[in-house]
Amino acid sequence: MNAWTGSNREIQIQEVALRDGLQGEVAFMPTDKKIDLIDRLTTTGLKKIEVTSFVSPRAIPNLADAEAVFAGIVRRSGVVYAALVPNLRGMERAISAAVNEVNFVLSASESHNLANLGMTCQKSFSAIREAAALSDQAGIRTAGSISCSFGCPIEGDIPAATIKEWCQRMIEQAGISSINLCDTTGMAFPAQVFDYVRNFRDQWPDIPLTLHFHNTRGLGMANVFAAIDGGATNFDAALAGIGGCPYAPGASGNLCTEDLVHALEVSGFACGINLDELIHASKELTNLLGHETFGQVAKAGNRLQSHPNPWGFDSKHLSKTSPE
Amino acid sequence: MNAWTGSNREIQIQEVALRDGLQGEVAFMPTDKKIDLIDRLTTTGLKKIEVTSFVSPRAIPNLADAEAVFAGIVRRSGVVYAALVPNLRGMERAISAAVNEVNFVLSASESHNLANLGMTCQKSFSAIREAAALSDQAGIRTAGSISCSFGCPIEGDIPAATIKEWCQRMIEQAGISSINLCDTTGMAFPAQVFDYVRNFRDQWPDIPLTLHFHNTRGLGMANVFAAIDGGATNFDAALAGIGGCPYAPGASGNLCTEDLVHALEVSGFACGINLDELIHASKELTNLLGHETFGQVAKAGNRLQSHPNPWGFDSKHLSKTSPE
Repeated sequence: MNAWTGSNREIQIQEVALRDGLQGEVAFMPTDKKIDLIDRLTTTGLKKIEVTSFVSPRAIPNLADAEAVFAGIVRRSGVVYAALVPNLRGMERAISAAVNEVNFVLSASESHNLANLGMTCQKSFSAIREAAALSDQAGIRTAGSISCSFGCPIEGDIPAATIKEWCQRMIEQAGISSINLCDTTGMAFPAQVFDYVRNFRDQWPDIPLTLHFHNTRGLGMANVFAAIDGGATNFDAALAGIGGCPYAPGASGNLCTEDLVHALEVSGFACGINLDELIHASKELTNLLGHETFGQVAKAGNRLQSHPNPWGFDSKHLSKTSPE
Repeated sequence: MNAWTGSNREIQIQEVALRDGLQGEVAFMPTDKKIDLIDRLTTTGLKKIEVTSFVSPRAIPNLADAEAVFAGIVRRSGVVYAALVPNLRGMERAISAAVNEVNFVLSASESHNLANLGMTCQKSFSAIREAAALSDQAGIRTAGSISCSFGCPIEGDIPAATIKEWCQRMIEQAGISSINLCDTTGMAFPAQVFDYVRNFRDQWPDIPLTLHFHNTRGLGMANVFAAIDGGATNFDAALAGIGGCPYAPGASGNLCTEDLVHALEVSGFACGINLDELIHASKELTNLLGHETFGQVAKAGNRLQSHPNPWGFDSKHLSKTSPE
């Protein structure tokens, strides 16, 4: 078996457009539209949806309605409705909202953590440890996201040993039950991804690992195949590829969910997701945002979708012939 | 050695923006601008540049200045200046212009060949055979491009045996010296690419093979790594990723040259191309076209290009600390 052939191997795709995607959108998306979109995503077969972030409404105005969104969605059994939680206050709000999984973030880069979260990595980690203890008491699953795992736009490459050390502290000191290695600004490349995933799987064979790629430099999809080759099975992605990077204006955002599902399904992997419904949801999201988005499959259709030729030629009346 | 690590293996990138990219552009690009751009590309280290097509000016008005472009460029020793040649008349023009390599095209799909070239595959092949004989007499290298090798937007999947048969006829009956397997409308996926390349290399170990991918469904870059894994070393790509597909309006065009060079160089492959100069040329092309293009690296910079953080935070005054 090579890296390219799915052979029905299961891959879990986790939707992050409503959180990682929307946080960069200037215009507020109405709460009922968010709820409709999540309810629609619930029916596609996705097993995990990151619904929102329990962050300060001042920090990210578009996610100021976190409680209302969680109260409004129709939950389906078997689907994990997750949320990002930046601090203890957010943790209390997440518990009240009966979130299924909380996602804690710290950056592997001290500079990025200070720029993004306004505190040192150590201070972020201490807050995560406290919040994780609360989460544990409440019986809520935890995920630890390590931003800039594959590089930092301010500091450049972060030593692999630093990433490993933060994974270890998240797992062993904070009791986090799963890890997300995040390519926050699209600096990951396949050889690096393959190594990181293989090393993680060797070290922590029982800890669920998610890869979170951005397509900032066009490498998102190649990185997925490298991650699978290294032993990964879980990937974040965002509908329509929304969520541009503030460090790279104009460049692509998150890896696009429908492009990823399409790529994996045509390769023979089993995602358990209805691609047509996903494309439908992507188009709806793009309409709601009112601007172009980065997803390709929503524009081009799946690879075997037949197209009339653009010059009006009627191929149905052709007698097909093979080479003689 | 895995598929992801370059280990200094050489990969040749061949530039097709001036031909495959421009043929879809509505506005005529002035001849002197084309010449300037090709001269600039010549200095980047590219080993092959497809300069134009000796097609009827009525068919592709943007390439009506083929002779003038060839006459105006400054050729550098070691660089192959290629052109597409659709018929005998085009072959005569290419010989007069002292083209270094001619590229003949037929589609593996009968419907696509009729729609695109207005004749049956067999008729196209007969014309290619005649033109190849002329080319041979003139001592000009030949390449045979097989469009829709990985699927046709009208007919769907094309049997692998059909692709193989056209390769065989091109090589053995027409005496073509190299083959381009073209993913004309972005239907290729990695497992398929890996198989096709490996089979081609097994069958014709001495015939140069180029892969020509479009990124219509976001799979272009992953397909490159799959092709390398299968034994490919030569790839077409277009500056700024220009050249959208008429069957998928709004979707990405050719695989983007600077994104590809960036991806391969950071992975440790040796392309021998100056990425900064390539990005410079890409931005110039985008300015000339006057509309957004699909390349990402021209927007985001290379992965280790440091960025000031967008919130005005000064990271230089941080004392860096590693996890304790």
